[in-house]
Amino acid sequence: MRYVYLRAFCTFVMIHLGAALDNGLARTPQMGWNSWAKFGCGVSEQAVLSMAQAIVETGLDKFGYQYVVIDDCWHGPSRNRSTGAPLADPTLFPNGIKKLADEIHGLGLKLGLYSSAGSMTCARRFGSLGYEEIDAQTYAEWGIDYLKYDNCYNEGQSGTPLISYNRYRRMFDALNATGRPILYSMCNWGEDQPWNWASTIANSWRVSGDLTDNFGRYDDRCPCTSMLDCKLPGFYCSVARIIDFAAPLGSKAGTGGWNDLDILEVGNGGMTNDEYITHFSMWSILKSPLLLGNDLTSMSQDTLDIITNDAIIALNQDPTNSAANRVFSRLIEGGGSLSLWVGSLVNGTTVVAIMNTSSKHQRLHLSFDEIFIDWLPARTFSYRVFDLWQKTPSKAGETLDFSQWTNSPIWGGD
Amino acid sequence: MRYVYLRAFCTFVMIHLGAALDNGLARTPQMGWNSWAKFGCGVSEQAVLSMAQAIVETGLDKFGYQYVVIDDCWHGPSRNRSTGAPLADPTLFPNGIKKLADEIHGLGLKLGLYSSAGSMTCARRFGSLGYEEIDAQTYAEWGIDYLKYDNCYNEGQSGTPLISYNRYRRMFDALNATGRPILYSMCNWGEDQPWNWASTIANSWRVSGDLTDNFGRYDDRCPCTSMLDCKLPGFYCSVARIIDFAAPLGSKAGTGGWNDLDILEVGNGGMTNDEYITHFSMWSILKSPLLLGNDLTSMSQDTLDIITNDAIIALNQDPTNSAANRVFSRLIEGGGSLSLWVGSLVNGTTVVAIMNTSSKHQRLHLSFDEIFIDWLPARTFSYRVFDLWQKTPSKAGETLDFSQWTNSPIWGGD
Amino acid sequence: MRYVYLRAFCTFVMIHLGAALDNGLARTPQMGWNSWAKFGCGVSEQAVLSMAQAIVETGLDKFGYQYVVIDDCWHGPSRNRSTGAPLADPTLFPNGIKKLADEIHGLGLKLGLYSSAGSMTCARRFGSLGYEEIDAQTYAEWGIDYLKYDNCYNEGQSGTPLISYNRYRRMFDALNATGRPILYSMCNWGEDQPWNWASTIANSWRVSGDLTDNFGRYDDRCPCTSMLDCKLPGFYCSVARIIDFAAPLGSKAGTGGWNDLDILEVGNGGMTNDEYITHFSMWSILKSPLLLGNDLTSMSQDTLDIITNDAIIALNQDPTNSAANRVFSRLIEGGGSLSLWVGSLVNGTTVVAIMNTSSKHQRLHLSFDEIFIDWLPARTFSYRVFDLWQKTPSKAGETLDFSQWTNSPIWGGD
Amino acid sequence: MRYVYLRAFCTFVMIHLGAALDNGLARTPQMGWNSWAKFGCGVSEQAVLSMAQAIVETGLDKFGYQYVVIDDCWHGPSRNRSTGAPLADPTLFPNGIKKLADEIHGLGLKLGLYSSAGSMTCARRFGSLGYEEIDAQTYAEWGIDYLKYDNCYNEGQSGTPLISYNRYRRMFDALNATGRPILYSMCNWGEDQPWNWASTIANSWRVSGDLTDNFGRYDDRCPCTSMLDCKLPGFYCSVARIIDFAAPLGSKAGTGGWNDLDILEVGNGGMTNDEYITHFSMWSILKSPLLLGNDLTSMSQDTLDIITNDAIIALNQDPTNSAANRVFSRLIEGGGSLSLWVGSLVNGTTVVAIMNTSSKHQRLHLSFDEIFIDWLPARTFSYRVFDLWQKTPSKAGETLDFSQWTNSPIWGGD
Repeated sequence: MRYVYLRAFCTFVMIHLGAALDNGLARTPQMGWNSWAKFGCGVSEQAVLSMAQAIVETGLDKFGYQYVVIDDCWHGPSRNRSTGAPLADPTLFPNGIKKLADEIHGLGLKLGLYSSAGSMTCARRFGSLGYEEIDAQTYAEWGIDYLKYDNCYNEGQSGTPLISYNRYRRMFDALNATGRPILYSMCNWGEDQPWNWASTIANSWRVSGDLTDNFGRYDDRCPCTSMLDCKLPGFYCSVARIIDFAAPLGSKAGTGGWNDLDILEVGNGGMTNDEYITHFSMWSILKSPLLLGNDLTSMSQDTLDIITNDAIIALNQDPTNSAANRVFSRLIEGGGSLSLWVGSLVNGTTVVAIMNTSSKHQRLHLSFDEIFIDWLPARTFSYRVFDLWQKTPSKAGETLDFSQWTNSPIWGGD
Repeated sequence: MRYVYLRAFCTFVMIHLGAALDNGLARTPQMGWNSWAKFGCGVSEQAVLSMAQAIVETGLDKFGYQYVVIDDCWHGPSRNRSTGAPLADPTLFPNGIKKLADEIHGLGLKLGLYSSAGSMTCARRFGSLGYEEIDAQTYAEWGIDYLKYDNCYNEGQSGTPLISYNRYRRMFDALNATGRPILYSMCNWGEDQPWNWASTIANSWRVSGDLTDNFGRYDDRCPCTSMLDCKLPGFYCSVARIIDFAAPLGSKAGTGGWNDLDILEVGNGGMTNDEYITHFSMWSILKSPLLLGNDLTSMSQDTLDIITNDAIIALNQDPTNSAANRVFSRLIEGGGSLSLWVGSLVNGTTVVAIMNTSSKHQRLHLSFDEIFIDWLPARTFSYRVFDLWQKTPSKAGETLDFSQWTNSPIWGGD
Repeated sequence: MRYVYLRAFCTFVMIHLGAALDNGLARTPQMGWNSWAKFGCGVSEQAVLSMAQAIVETGLDKFGYQYVVIDDCWHGPSRNRSTGAPLADPTLFPNGIKKLADEIHGLGLKLGLYSSAGSMTCARRFGSLGYEEIDAQTYAEWGIDYLKYDNCYNEGQSGTPLISYNRYRRMFDALNATGRPILYSMCNWGEDQPWNWASTIANSWRVSGDLTDNFGRYDDRCPCTSMLDCKLPGFYCSVARIIDFAAPLGSKAGTGGWNDLDILEVGNGGMTNDEYITHFSMWSILKSPLLLGNDLTSMSQDTLDIITNDAIIALNQDPTNSAANRVFSRLIEGGGSLSLWVGSLVNGTTVVAIMNTSSKHQRLHLSFDEIFIDWLPARTFSYRVFDLWQKTPSKAGETLDFSQWTNSPIWGGD
Repeated sequence: MRYVYLRAFCTFVMIHLGAALDNGLARTPQMGWNSWAKFGCGVSEQAVLSMAQAIVETGLDKFGYQYVVIDDCWHGPSRNRSTGAPLADPTLFPNGIKKLADEIHGLGLKLGLYSSAGSMTCARRFGSLGYEEIDAQTYAEWGIDYLKYDNCYNEGQSGTPLISYNRYRRMFDALNATGRPILYSMCNWGEDQPWNWASTIANSWRVSGDLTDNFGRYDDRCPCTSMLDCKLPGFYCSVARIIDFAAPLGSKAGTGGWNDLDILEVGNGGMTNDEYITHFSMWSILKSPLLLGNDLTSMSQDTLDIITNDAIIALNQDPTNSAANRVFSRLIEGGGSLSLWVGSLVNGTTVVAIMNTSSKHQRLHLSFDEIFIDWLPARTFSYRVFDLWQKTPSKAGETLDFSQWTNSPIWGGD
């Protein structure tokens, strides 16, 4: 996979349709770390603090990673029996969530929590359906900055956009009522087309079933071929599959409301370095939230290099807030595809990505006519070209030769 | 693309199912100009007036173009804080909409306005959901003649025909209550099959995502292969794609209620002249409203020739109000298709169109059996044949040779 | 198309799922004549009477054709302005519907009427939505025996089985409340899977868009490839297409509630005689109501022979009430298919039909294993075989040679 | 079909999403016998008792078969006319259901009953829609332990998960209110995705139309190609088809809530012994309830050997409660497929099944990389391998040769 980063001497004027929630949060896609992949139901105060400290020590916070999100299983065995308020597990979180939030805030970071818009969470802890107000209020009192809100055990409350909207709207209203800015991360797995209705109530919404740490293997447990009307989002979805799902949804992402492609798997061991580069790059240009899922206390240099590539992160956080569009996707004989992605950045800059998911090297002749499909004059300008992974500019008149790599680099520039 | 225009010596008796709203408007498909493609959010009193004047100066009004429609972005920063009434942007429309309507009316034209059946318009201005009555009342007071009513930020109110119907019905009732005849142009992008239910509440309804200025390129942003149950209408849909979408819907169009294929792109530069001829001709015979989208103050002669072809416009405005039907569509090796379209006109006249979307010349032998599939006796009559683009009649016994052109002419007659 | 009619020396015990409404009507599929194809909006008292008289004169009533159904356009320009009661057109029906019903009853026949579960009928006469009680009451007072209840202008009241059910249930309740037995013929074109829910409220339900007088031509106006979740039933559906639609629905038909494949086109001129034989035979074994649509005052002998084939009618009216099942359908190179249909009749008799929709003769070797798939012992019995069109029994040991015909005969027996 | 049973020296830690109802029942998939296939509407006290006695005499209860379920047709001609309570048929059940329950309990078994969430049962007996409370109360008074709750005549109450959920929830609440533990077996044929919402209200839910006693023949009466959004579940579904339907649903099964693949056909005569072995094995590893459907009073040794294979039953009842996952399914030229299934068991044991549905022998080279896709370290361990049908362990270094069989054995172990 390669990227071309082009500086055009004009300004694109594009009115994009997908813009969103005005709670002042997620002006660009949120960045941080989530506990699930590493700790699952073994998450604890100690685990969370160690990761938060690692964020500061490795300097990840300087790159924008600020949310530390506790996923499922922070819960005690039951709610407070008299008030109905949620309670954290006293063993895993002996000092309580509020104390933990203070410590996280003390590190200059923000704390996220998890619940489900159902009668139980996915791991069968108490859910928030019917408890939206008291839960939101308690989260606010605890100093929570972020809520991931899942879809398990939803008691049949899905099937039309309106049914799903109403269910997720209840928590949105409850969060708003607290007065505390809490980033609202919807996770209904793309059911009932959230990209069409979530942008006025949420800061991000998952677009598919769960990502797995694999680049392209088909898995029966992620059975839909498209998310446009998928009735079983499932899980074990590969990077390539989720990119395919997200391709038509780019215009739905915008300031304050993002298509969430799920937690990053970079550094978890199931892909090659080139595949992780592709994974991270595509999540960036598709404007997905960037939530790390790896163990931050023991990262390889390769992993650190990927997640701290400031040029790639800049694509994700670019203030134009325009997701890249897939211009074409060509099937390759023997499996996989070769696709071209183009996105608009500030100051008339364009990002270009070429993704090869086949197992073979591919040679591609690419013309400006193919890159600039929406605004024709852009075809006539001159450009400086930068590789955002090699970090070397192209020379004048140089041919960009994409034939040496299966999955990887990128050209980048100012 | 070629048309054969046949005069039969019989009268077709066809009871068509799709007939519609009885507010006295849109007895034939509405014609006019819309501000979006040219001005986007830069629309202004001055811009609108200059286009209205151009309509009169170029004589377009004589051909039927009468509605001047202001699309999104006429809005002020907020509604009137005490009454809730909509307010126009005081900078862009310094004299107010009512004054502008008076001037438009003074030119013998009519003024249209835009809103969305959502909490915001697509460009994030205040929407009309929940404000139907005061908005309709204000539009009427301003002297508005036409409302384009969009679908952005609809708060999940879609998913079944009934949910969408109820939402759009509210504005229909509100418009009716004003007592002023206001053409109601629904724009819910074909979600929930509006062709099945909109004809009793609206004068037209969009059948797809937004058209782009391209004849046939596939674009991922318009991902559905059919509109019969499309969950993401999208945008950047090509002319050929929208024709394909509209093919099965012809019977749903009728007096007072039309399938809207979106604003015309003729003259905007993204297609060849032949392609624009095809675009305009097909919109006409499919009974789409004909809303120009180009800059009327600087048109080429080619553009003017297309949009003022009175024979083609006559097909669109023919009182039989019967959309052409696609008799067949044959895939061409190498891409594209060759399709035959036939429609009924007044006095037993028949319009025949052959559309070639491949990149190669095609030779087609066409028999009367193929043209006249619904009423068999028509096969035995004699016909005079006219080319509506060449404007020359065929000679007796002449063979109509369609092989010289890729996309274009038409035969026409009285 | 050929039929084999087999007499087995055993009794099938089959508990079929699809059985239905207990209003005492349509114990077997209803038979009669409908005005639409012949008269359209030109229907009148005189037209109806002339057809009723023709039924008696040609002896069609002896074969079971008893319902004379007036389709759309019997309506006056409006309802009674004070009572809201429906009024017939005073010119077309100068003596009123009640008088006409009396005359029809005097001929030993029954009278049917038409309305739509919408704000208008398909031809834009007043509809019954919101007027169910007064309409049903008036029909009963008029002596009406049958109601065909259409789906036009339904104001968006569709999209889930429950929405459609509730709408059609209202008329069911209203008809019941009159105390008069009125056969309730639902016509919602197969939207929202009526076969799953209509059997407790209706005597029959249409399963598709309107049939056209053509055996197998594909028409874009009938665009769905299956009716299982079709969002645009359309019209101009061919005989072969509707058979294909009905194939999986056989088990849903049963005593008192039938899959309606639409009015017969036999004798209307658009098909060959063999095709009409196939059409009539398949409608019969699929347990469709048999409503004639041709001009009964001027029938050819061929037409009369088809619609009065008592062996075929006996298949339709067989008290086992079990629709034939399609055992296989094999695509034929060059277009069309060869399919095998098997149904259970009284006294262990089996009906077998082989349908060839290709343009070429087909040779088929058929074993008892293929015919008897549900109850294996039937494969070991001996059978007498009758051709229900040739009306000659096979000789012992005779080979049944299906190779001489493209579409046609049938073997039959006692 | 062959199974490999692998003992790994590690413990899998898998948090599965699908876990369920906490009424204390169906901790593992329920096992027993159902009356429908054998007796249909001829079921009686005598028939039920004879089967219950056969369970005890053949020792089937020792293998876990404990529920004796009376399916449709136990009903009297009507409910109690004054109380509305259900009444059993006095001829078929002369001593009443309560007495029968006592006798069944006396044998150490449990008694199940059947009703439908509709106005009638499938065989047109009185249904429970609107009678949930009195029916549940009566069942409890009778000592019923299990309710199979069908979907016939549901009056249009389907179409979204919420509509179906609400209908089935009513009986769940009614059963709960009785205070008696009654296993709740939902049978809505997979409509509206019950796997997504039934786990909090039911102990099992059918995932498809009815199984027929056939391994792989396609039948038009079971027309959907997937159950993810099937609008006509139908019946006459083959074993291979239902396995295909269930493949993506494995994660939805869990403690207390199971995917029900329908009553077993083992011993009913329509399949070969190898096919029955495959049928029983796949139902087991997919965690389907195991309800026998054959005549227990006259079983062949082959049948008894299959349904009492304790190693296979142990797969079904394994406390890990994790359904096997289909790793791949490869189409075989000439028809059928070769698929690999892998499931996790207690103590790090893995079950591996290879299913060949083609008519030809297949040779398969299988690597640990293919078997262990979710947790990569498992690929590096050593395993002991057992064939669960041959009941012989493999020797060290032995090649497992799957080429001799079309459908059959299995390797098993401790």
